[in-house]
Amino acid sequence: MPDPQILSISDLSTSEAKWVALKKVDFVDQKGTPRSWEIAVRKTTSKSGVDAVAMGNIFVHPSKPPATLLVIQYRPPVGKYTVEWPAGLIDEDETPEEAAIREMKEETGYEGRILDSSPAVASDPGLTNATLKLVMMEVQLSAGEAEDIMPEQKLDDGELIERVMVPLSELYERLLGWAARDDFMIAGKLFYFAAGMHFAKNSGYI
Amino acid sequence: MPDPQILSISDLSTSEAKWVALKKVDFVDQKGTPRSWEIAVRKTTSKSGVDAVAMGNIFVHPSKPPATLLVIQYRPPVGKYTVEWPAGLIDEDETPEEAAIREMKEETGYEGRILDSSPAVASDPGLTNATLKLVMMEVQLSAGEAEDIMPEQKLDDGELIERVMVPLSELYERLLGWAARDDFMIAGKLFYFAAGMHFAKNSGYI
Repeated sequence: MPDPQILSISDLSTSEAKWVALKKVDFVDQKGTPRSWEIAVRKTTSKSGVDAVAMGNIFVHPSKPPATLLVIQYRPPVGKYTVEWPAGLIDEDETPEEAAIREMKEETGYEGRILDSSPAVASDPGLTNATLKLVMMEVQLSAGEAEDIMPEQKLDDGELIERVMVPLSELYERLLGWAARDDFMIAGKLFYFAAGMHFAKNSGYI
Repeated sequence: MPDPQILSISDLSTSEAKWVALKKVDFVDQKGTPRSWEIAVRKTTSKSGVDAVAMGNIFVHPSKPPATLLVIQYRPPVGKYTVEWPAGLIDEDETPEEAAIREMKEETGYEGRILDSSPAVASDPGLTNATLKLVMMEVQLSAGEAEDIMPEQKLDDGELIERVMVPLSELYERLLGWAARDDFMIAGKLFYFAAGMHFAKNSGYI
């Protein structure tokens, strides 16, 4: 398939926008000084108070090393293909953990088992109120399951998401390889997780 | 000092905003279908093409375990105190690495030595074009330097940034402790790095 093409990037008013808005926060700081801060907000925050979940996932196979499934998709905000863990917005009446199971199934086709669910953390706290939970999941593959024959995804109309299985031990180097391409960008949080793993194993500090 | 108080949160138009803007990206996807995406952008991206740097830092002392210096500050976008690694926007004519040295000195008072500088990664690629580099830095303390007597910060007017030194081996648990407080939130990328370290050491997978 041909690469997506950006046709135009135009100014958007908050009133026209369906998904995002700009807000001005007026506040008094610790010294009693009035200040203001400009922020971007999502219009879609769920009742759980958390915007999104990302599924840090480990695929366990009886005879293969543990691996993780990454998703590659064109992301118009950065104008490139991004490499990320599966993730999605939490629907209005879902818990973050329900969203994690549902989004994992939709984006990857796999049923995951939740190992751990993080506190809500700030996505980019200088810019936005958006929050997410990192939900760690395990997917158990049977001996006969091959990673090059994956179950069917259940994507929304217009979603095109490629899946790539990467051994955990190669994750950091594989991300650096993608990052060297002009048409790819790594999602920051996935990169930080991989960098933390790499640091723990190789830095000699811990 | 008293906690900051939010007085009001009001709609902001892109034309009034100084730091952020909303944009609509019109594009043609891989199947040839015209689509659009709403994004938040910073008005301040540097010539380097990267918005920000974060300083993953390791403090090395002759007789103490390796530690990392975190910064705690009130973040109006989330309305809480955040726990983060030192970070900042790259000035127009700086390289990311110059910004890392400068911001480390300003926010923490310490001179760091760069160990590694990551590729530009996407801060929140479903929402914004904002990018950052993770610059890993080492600060060498001498035997006499105590971590409770820190050098003077050089903060901008209005910046109030508390510094907390945490042994690397305790980082993940300390972040969970802060996250349990109603008035604190952990910055996502720092949490992911700590989770990656914790996973590498404790999961048994790698």
